[in-house]
Amino acid sequence: MESVCYNPIGIVETPFAEREGMPIQAAGGEGVRGRINLKPEYVEGLKDLDGFSHLILIYHFHLTQERHLVVTPFLDDTPRGVFATRSPNHPNTIGISTVRLLAIKGNCLEIEDVDMVSGTPLLDIKPYVPAFDHREPERLGWLEKAGAKVRKTRADKRFT
Amino acid sequence: MESVCYNPIGIVETPFAEREGMPIQAAGGEGVRGRINLKPEYVEGLKDLDGFSHLILIYHFHLTQERHLVVTPFLDDTPRGVFATRSPNHPNTIGISTVRLLAIKGNCLEIEDVDMVSGTPLLDIKPYVPAFDHREPERLGWLEKAGAKVRKTRADKRFT
Repeated sequence: MESVCYNPIGIVETPFAEREGMPIQAAGGEGVRGRINLKPEYVEGLKDLDGFSHLILIYHFHLTQERHLVVTPFLDDTPRGVFATRSPNHPNTIGISTVRLLAIKGNCLEIEDVDMVSGTPLLDIKPYVPAFDHREPERLGWLEKAGAKVRKTRADKRFT
Repeated sequence: MESVCYNPIGIVETPFAEREGMPIQAAGGEGVRGRINLKPEYVEGLKDLDGFSHLILIYHFHLTQERHLVVTPFLDDTPRGVFATRSPNHPNTIGISTVRLLAIKGNCLEIEDVDMVSGTPLLDIKPYVPAFDHREPERLGWLEKAGAKVRKTRADKRFT
């Protein structure tokens, strides 16, 4: 299987200069503002995007050095298989977050509810559409109990 | 900005040998079964994943050759900025779909509600967690009216 290479389309700026103390999910970054600086050559692709209140951002966890198949997540004390967690230490360090779009000015997108470190390389922007993206899961595994803590939990130094 | 390279963690097998006639979103692939063949070296990372009923798959649209900043989506007759669509022809051809997990057997994951072509290189698996992923958008732009057609619309040859 060949490796796949992507060129970042821009950079996400946030108030978080480092990972420690950050929200661990966009749902925990409620009200925190950030900005996407899109490469100017992609501005034409933003047409019609201002009609959407929420965007899915796909980005690269550029600070993540280590890879682990088993991790102890922020929300738990038990080691879990990495694919059963939202930790950044997956074999491919790809992040997804749904954020609120406030305004588009040229190549800058003002956004809210951010949970990524400033300087994060952005790979893609998609409109968030419940008809496509929303499900009602019957089972949430180990997050059944722990998920409710997401809004208050902040990152520490465990994932490097 | 440096380019980012990922090694696929496995392959998604589906009943869709080609894109034409496929569901255009996982929500339109309801009940369609598929399978993930994970590379055996990642099996340990699947621990605890069987507790979750739904997974987010992040994958590479490997058949997509062209890139466009403006596209006419399957669900519309009007050209739209590519970032305001879920078309595969984004600058980085990354797909996301939320699918149902039926069973895990060794390195094989039986899944349902698939909307990708067979042979798709898989980049990541994450648990789908409404507390992290669900939002209630106030505005859905051009998809406000068109979104309801997603379950019945099938792909044609427009995106190559």
